[in-house]
Amino acid sequence: MATAQKLPRQVNGVAVDDLFSTIDAVKATPSIAKFKFRIHNEWELGSQNKSTVDKYYGTDQQLTHNKPFVLEADEPAVLLGKDEAANPVEHLLHALASCLTTSMVYHAAARGIQIDEVESTLEGDLDLHGFLDLDKSVRNGYQGIRVNFKVKADVPDEKLNEIVQLGTGHSPVFESLSNGVPISVKTERL
Amino acid sequence: MATAQKLPRQVNGVAVDDLFSTIDAVKATPSIAKFKFRIHNEWELGSQNKSTVDKYYGTDQQLTHNKPFVLEADEPAVLLGKDEAANPVEHLLHALASCLTTSMVYHAAARGIQIDEVESTLEGDLDLHGFLDLDKSVRNGYQGIRVNFKVKADVPDEKLNEIVQLGTGHSPVFESLSNGVPISVKTERL
Repeated sequence: MATAQKLPRQVNGVAVDDLFSTIDAVKATPSIAKFKFRIHNEWELGSQNKSTVDKYYGTDQQLTHNKPFVLEADEPAVLLGKDEAANPVEHLLHALASCLTTSMVYHAAARGIQIDEVESTLEGDLDLHGFLDLDKSVRNGYQGIRVNFKVKADVPDEKLNEIVQLGTGHSPVFESLSNGVPISVKTERL
Repeated sequence: MATAQKLPRQVNGVAVDDLFSTIDAVKATPSIAKFKFRIHNEWELGSQNKSTVDKYYGTDQQLTHNKPFVLEADEPAVLLGKDEAANPVEHLLHALASCLTTSMVYHAAARGIQIDEVESTLEGDLDLHGFLDLDKSVRNGYQGIRVNFKVKADVPDEKLNEIVQLGTGHSPVFESLSNGVPISVKTERL
């Protein structure tokens, strides 16, 4: 007796039925797609500070993570720190890598493409002449970032590139960092 | 007997003599200012992946952190994850906050400005219509980020703003994210 073929409920560890339900829910109620992500950072001393990630807004309500996450930052000794945590520009590379990977994995799952393994190595060029005010023609930020993906999946070569392009084509951090984001800064006295 | 006044060796926990020595060293040997920061990311399953931060290049040599730092990423349940770590766009806010703070603290130290406390709260707006391919006019990334600094320092109000502008005016992550960075992506089979 023939039975209707059903999509597997999990592809790449992503609950694809829930993903499609989310898309339907956003179509029905567009406001649930508006998220506000937040962190609170406290300076400790010198190169050391830490952020707490706890609350965010989405699906038309204030939401709270299962537990607060604490993210630390420091600088290595050569940049006058104590080298007890990754530095801010390394955290930026982590944000980029993790977002590209998650975006790729989710969108591959939505298309029923199974991925077995993903690794990426990221490298960014930074010239301190900008930060140190020694040469105004040198930008303060990264001059360029190179991302090298290695993907294991039972697909032809051209499909392998398409899988990675699902990441670059959807990743919020990749798009933010490629095109820039308006950032407003306010100051008050503590 | 009068003695020459000496700069304190530490301002805001920053070894200012070392900071000035670094500037002199860069003037003498410009190539030592060229850094390459790196991370290696491995996908685990679904929304979970982690980056290892270990080696970097600077001062004309390969360098290694005191120990490797592992940075995790996940998504909350409402975004189909297990909520065991901050998500990529929250990591991006941490990169921005930590870089603004460190840049502010270092450049204030170089000017002999003592800062007692710094806190910041960051919030970014993200509309999933972009990520979910539901509206091509909505960007995938942050539509805007608001940074609220609270600074405790024994300075007049106008100086308080100048202190924060030392951060925005020098921070590599702020400049990268404000203006965008060229990102190249390569793919190979694992």
